[in-house]
Parts: sequence; C-alpha cells; structure tokens
Amino acid sequence: MQNRAGYRGSSLEFLTKRNLSPGDMLSIRKGGIEYVGSLLPRYEHADENYLTIKLLNGYNIGVKVSNIESVSKLSDGTEPLFARPTLPRLDSSLPRIVVMGTGGTIASRIDYKTGGVHPAFSAEDIYAVIPEISRYAQIDTVAVLNDYSENIATREWRIIAEAIADKISGGADGIVVSHGTDTMAYTAAALSFALIGSPVPIILVGSQRSTDRPSSDAALNMIAAVLVASRPEFSGVYLAMHSSSNDDSVSIHLGTKVRKNHTSRRDAFESINIPPVATVKGERIQRLGLPKEGKASFALRPGFEEKVALLKFHPGFDPDLIDYLRTRGYKGLVLEGTGLGHVSAKCYEPIRRAVLSGILVGMTSQCIWGRVRMTVYSTGRDLMNLGVIPLDDMLPETAQVKMMWAIKNSHDFEDARNTMIMNIAGELVERSPVDRGQS
Amino acid sequence: MQNRAGYRGSSLEFLTKRNLSPGDMLSIRKGGIEYVGSLLPRYEHADENYLTIKLLNGYNIGVKVSNIESVSKLSDGTEPLFARPTLPRLDSSLPRIVVMGTGGTIASRIDYKTGGVHPAFSAEDIYAVIPEISRYAQIDTVAVLNDYSENIATREWRIIAEAIADKISGGADGIVVSHGTDTMAYTAAALSFALIGSPVPIILVGSQRSTDRPSSDAALNMIAAVLVASRPEFSGVYLAMHSSSNDDSVSIHLGTKVRKNHTSRRDAFESINIPPVATVKGERIQRLGLPKEGKASFALRPGFEEKVALLKFHPGFDPDLIDYLRTRGYKGLVLEGTGLGHVSAKCYEPIRRAVLSGILVGMTSQCIWGRVRMTVYSTGRDLMNLGVIPLDDMLPETAQVKMMWAIKNSHDFEDARNTMIMNIAGELVERSPVDRGQS
Repeated sequence: MQNRAGYRGSSLEFLTKRNLSPGDMLSIRKGGIEYVGSLLPRYEHADENYLTIKLLNGYNIGVKVSNIESVSKLSDGTEPLFARPTLPRLDSSLPRIVVMGTGGTIASRIDYKTGGVHPAFSAEDIYAVIPEISRYAQIDTVAVLNDYSENIATREWRIIAEAIADKISGGADGIVVSHGTDTMAYTAAALSFALIGSPVPIILVGSQRSTDRPSSDAALNMIAAVLVASRPEFSGVYLAMHSSSNDDSVSIHLGTKVRKNHTSRRDAFESINIPPVATVKGERIQRLGLPKEGKASFALRPGFEEKVALLKFHPGFDPDLIDYLRTRGYKGLVLEGTGLGHVSAKCYEPIRRAVLSGILVGMTSQCIWGRVRMTVYSTGRDLMNLGVIPLDDMLPETAQVKMMWAIKNSHDFEDARNTMIMNIAGELVERSPVDRGQS
Repeated sequence: MQNRAGYRGSSLEFLTKRNLSPGDMLSIRKGGIEYVGSLLPRYEHADENYLTIKLLNGYNIGVKVSNIESVSKLSDGTEPLFARPTLPRLDSSLPRIVVMGTGGTIASRIDYKTGGVHPAFSAEDIYAVIPEISRYAQIDTVAVLNDYSENIATREWRIIAEAIADKISGGADGIVVSHGTDTMAYTAAALSFALIGSPVPIILVGSQRSTDRPSSDAALNMIAAVLVASRPEFSGVYLAMHSSSNDDSVSIHLGTKVRKNHTSRRDAFESINIPPVATVKGERIQRLGLPKEGKASFALRPGFEEKVALLKFHPGFDPDLIDYLRTRGYKGLVLEGTGLGHVSAKCYEPIRRAVLSGILVGMTSQCIWGRVRMTVYSTGRDLMNLGVIPLDDMLPETAQVKMMWAIKNSHDFEDARNTMIMNIAGELVERSPVDRGQS
C-alpha cells in the first residue's frame, strides 16, 4: 500500500509525508482553484516535481507539488492490481475475431506496480492486458502494416482490405482493425467501399491518448470494438471510439459518415449528419440509428485511383491549381467549396477545361455539416452546367476516397459519375421531411 | 382576416373550405406523422398545391394539400401587419452606426399582406423593414461592393477595411457589415487584422435563408448586429448570427474564432475552442466570454499578400503541389494536417525546399477543434525541424488570412514568422490548466 509507483524526489516526499498513495481520491487547492480527482501512478521518466491527478471529468492533469496550497484525502483508493493473468481457457463456441494491427501497439495498459507500460501485440498479450476480451471472443492477431497513420493511402488500403477478405473467407466472424486516429476515418471510408457488402462486422479502433499514458482510452475502445465485431447484426464497416470524455461509453460510427473533429479529446470522432449507429456501455449495446440496408453482395474491390485530389477552396484560391492537376493527368477532383457548394467565378474556366478533359469533378462543402445544394444560387447552377457533380451530404473526405474507388472500379467516366451519386455504403443520407422543407 | 395571402388554386380552396388563415396554429397529419405549426403566407410564385407551415422548431415545411390526411386548428392567428411606417423621428443622441452592404440586399422582410418581399438598401428602407432599429441607432448605409461572397478576397478586404476606417475617422460609433455567409468568417478574420485595435465595434452580419423567404433570419441578426455595434464595450471585430434554430437569440462571435459549420441551418456559425463572446435576446446582451484584452492601438493595415495557399492534406495528397506553389512564387503556405499536425513523410522534402526558398509554412489541423501539438510524435518534431510553424489552436481559415496579412505587413521572413505565433486579435487562445494537463 505504501508503493507510490513512479514517484521520486519532491513528489515522493510530498506523498510520503501525507501518507497518500495512488488510487486515493484527493481534493487539491492550487491557485485558488480546487481540483478533485484520484492520484495516478506515474511512469518512469516523469518529472519528479509533479503529481498526476485523474479529474472526475476523466482528464489527467499534472500538478506541481510546490504550487499546491492544500490537499486533503477524500477517500482511500485501492491500488489497482496488475499481473499478467494465466491465459484464459477459451470457449470454442465464442465468435472468432481477427485483430489487425496497422502501426504501433494494438493495445496497452499501464502497470500500476511499476508505472511501466505493457504493450500488446499478440493475442496472448491482448488477453493479458485486456482480460475482459476473453469473455466475448476467441481472438487472433495479425500485423498487416507498421506505419504512422498519416502515411497510409491507396496502397495500404489495398493491403488491409485484402487481408480482411482473406480472414473472412477463412471463417472469421468479425474483424477489428487497430489504426492510428489521424487518418482512421479515411481508412474507414476506404474499407466501406473496398469491402462492400461484407458479411461480417469490420470495426476500426484507435486511441487518442498515446498508449504509454495512464489516461489511455485504448482498452475501453478495444473492448467495445471486439464486442461489436462479435455481433452479426453489425455487418459493414464501423469505427469505435469514446462517446465522451468519460471513460464509460464507446460510440459506433458508420464508416462513411465519421470524422475526427478534435485534435486531442478522447471523443474526437463524430458521426456527421446522422447519429452514431450504436453506443456500447459495459456489455450493453444500444442501437441509436440504423444504417441503410445494404443490398450489395460481398465483393472485394481493393483498387483506388491515386490521381484524385481534394482541394479546399478559400479566398485567394489559385484557379491555376486546377489546370496544374489536369496537366498532371489527374482523373478526379473533389472540391471543398463554401456554403451550399460554391467556388469563385475565377475557377469556372479551369473547371470547364478539367471536365472537358474527362476529369470527374465533384462538389462538397467545407461547412462539414449539412448538404451541398447547387440549385439555390446562380453560382451553383453555373457550376452544375459546367459538369460539376453535387455530392449532397457526402463528407469531403469520404467523397475523395469514394472517387478514388469509383474511378478505379468503373469502366468509363459515365459509370464513375453514376457511382458517385449512388448511395453505396451509407455515405449519402436522404433528407428528412423537415429538413426537406428547410432552407 | 379572410385574406389568404399568396395562396391560389388547390391550396386556396383547401384553406377557404376549412376557414383557415395565415397565422393560425394547425395540427396537420400526413403520412402518419403529426406536424404542429403556424400557417405562413406564401410569396407570389409559390407552387399552388402546397401550404407553408412554420414548425415549432422554427423550420418551415411545404405540405402538399393532396397528401394531408387531417387538419385541425389549434388556435386562431392574428395576421401580422405590415405597412411601411413613417420614418421615425430619430433621437440625435443615439449612436451613429454605418451599415455597409457588400452584396445583395442588406435586409428584407416579407409582406404578410401580399406575400411579397421588401428588400432594403437605404437607411429609410432598413427603418421601414426593421423599425426596431430606430430605437438603438441613427443609421447610415453605404454599398461598398456588390458580389457573391465566394468572390470576395484580398482586393475586396482592402476596400471594406478602408471604407470602415474612413467611417470611423468620420465619427461613426459602430459599423455593421452585411455579408454573404459563405466567406463571412474569412472576411471577419481579415478585418480583425486589417483594422487592428479598432476603437469601435465592427459587426459582420448575414442571413442563412435567402431574404426572399418567409423564414429569413436577416431581421433578427441585423437588429442584434446594430444593437452590439452601438455598444462601446465591443470594440473589435465580431460576427452576429442565430444562436439556434429558434428565431429568438443571436450569438456574437469573435471574428478570428468563428466558422461556418453547417450549409443551411440558421445557427450555422460556431465559435471554435471558445464560447461566443455574447448572446443577444431582445434588447438584452449577455456576456459569455471575454475576448483577450487588445493592447494594440488602432492601425489600418489593409494589405494582404495574394500568394498564400491553404492546402488540406489527405491520403494520396500529391507532394508535388508544394513544389508547384514554390515555383509559382508563393510566399506562404498553411497546411491543414491531420490530428495534432501531421502530413505524410512524402511531403518532407518539398516542405524543406519551400522553407529554404523563404516560404512561410504553417501547420493547422483539419480536425477544426483542439490545437496542433507537434512535439508529441516524431512526425511532428520532424516537421518542426524542417521549419514548419505550429499554429496552435488557430483555425486553418484564420491562419491563411493571417499569413496573407503577416507577410504583407512585415519587413522580413523572421518578422512575419513572429507575427504568426503572436496573438494579435484573439486568434490564439491559451490552453486552460485542465486542458494543459490533458495532452
């Protein structure tokens, strides 16, 4: 109980003098403000002059001991135990879930004894750091890539999609893809198209806190991902991440309608224009919205055209960029216009030239929420007359990924154009009757 | 009372038979769903087969009379009166507010008698369509531009800024700039820098519903804008738009921290990373957050460098675009990276070449909320080593506008670089203590 894991020097002295230990619920006053939360263990190389407190809202703060005006213990904590459990005896009737790694560790959990971190790569490791998982699934792990997620693009999407199709044909009941959060939503969209009509659930999962930190959200997200991947009613591609800053609920987002909307919060991912498909609390899955009924039969189509750009319009946007991409052999162009789908009049001629050269040009909105409507103002009508395809409520990011896929998997321009305006994987949501009357 | 303004044919017949008039609160059943709302008058060329209902949530819907299963009148409406009032006798002690037009009508209000629309351009027109304004201010109008807002850029920002400075030196107590919503947030940022330290409030205002529609939000937004413009405690640049879909409250956003986040909702504009500065309900202004105390003295600096691009990174992003902009003589580049501020490793060499050529390269995040932190992952540190400037919690759009301004108003690269990381007009918000511990 007197193990003050990770604390050294002045912080250890502070804790020892007051008989405080990791897990204790404390009230700390600093700069006239009261902070209530539990004392966390620290990891090895942490600054010795700070305590780490997990606030009630789920965030961790570092408090410099020399700035603490007063501290009182509200309740004793039980120090969390950490020991590698013996490998559970798995029930062979449990669903078989494949957990794929695409970079870094798949999961990790801090060791409260030493403040050290146990990263997990193998199935055994995952059972050890997240023992809850053995209740829901027999898991198998495979590392398909090992790169930062900002380096993942068309080639990597193909590798992941092919690995998933392989595991599905091998009898997997569900797939979990561990992915860096930076581009996880792009990959979710890519897999939604590449693995259209998947008979089993494919769940992307990540963590916003690097897994070497005590506040990591990796374990809860992974548990929810495995739980949903083990449920046959979730066929299709989804993304599982925290619903709020509290460490108690995970949202399941449709792979084509989700976006990373915060750089650091654990609930950074949001479904756009629709509610999340479900929320997972403990073992309970609450359905919130139903994705469009998929009529497609399963087909692996892992090809993506590289020569597709996403261009965000802004005041002073250089229309020559459009000509440049045309001369570079680009085949598709998704514009992120303003408002209902507009760009400056200076872009009209370059756009006309692009369309005449057989480049697919689609319009989305940088507003993110809502939908492009190019019939309201003459600007929008002008652009449609030039051949620009209004992409309704499709996210710009999803539109770019879909266009890469549509061009690679169509036999001609018209076919690709039709694919863009067809709802393939829930990326287009019809307006509700109220919404329809709006604006 | 029997005037069923704007209704003709089958809809008029439907209303006459049931003795229903505009303003009546109705319960309409259609497709098994009950819609409750008040009957609106229609404008002249509306489809004769539809009724227009203003729902309790503030949205208007069109209901085809042939689809109506049942209708009942919940209460009689009083038909709104509309008549051009005689020009009010203005109190010469009221603040002098200049209302600037940049495109289209400044305001309009539907005439409930005829269903027609009264657009307002002159001060007399504005008093006539929004008589409330005469209680707060003596207004004067000036049309400085007449273009769609997607065509507004550096040249137009200069024109607007110079016109405002001229009116301020002429004794105006406040300025209201009527602006299309598509690029209004960019212009708000531009004026925040161009008119730094403005001694009077400058309020941008627009409407999300085209002013020829009964659900227009123009009048309420304009009243709030004039009210705030008449209050000396609001010196600086702000943007006034609906706080919610209800037609009862207007949010006042800081000009450098606001973004259009929905294509069509009346409450499309949101303050990012901070609360709105104030909310206006009726005549009551409630302060919500205080913008940073500005220390700058007033200076008109209306110049903006055109050769500054905003590039959004995405999987498959073509690093050659960076080289292309370099060879085109670009002077600044704002990257919209992923997560905490990352781009793929393929971009490193082009970025290095750009920085070596004296191009200012800044990093923002496409997450929109949160802040860039380039010290967490090696990718971020690599980019900083290449000379990329982390722009903290600055919005990508604000960052691009600020870089255009910083380059034009600095004597060298170092000076412009320092300007970018300095808080000039509230565009950078310090992390809160909790946020600071967060990572």
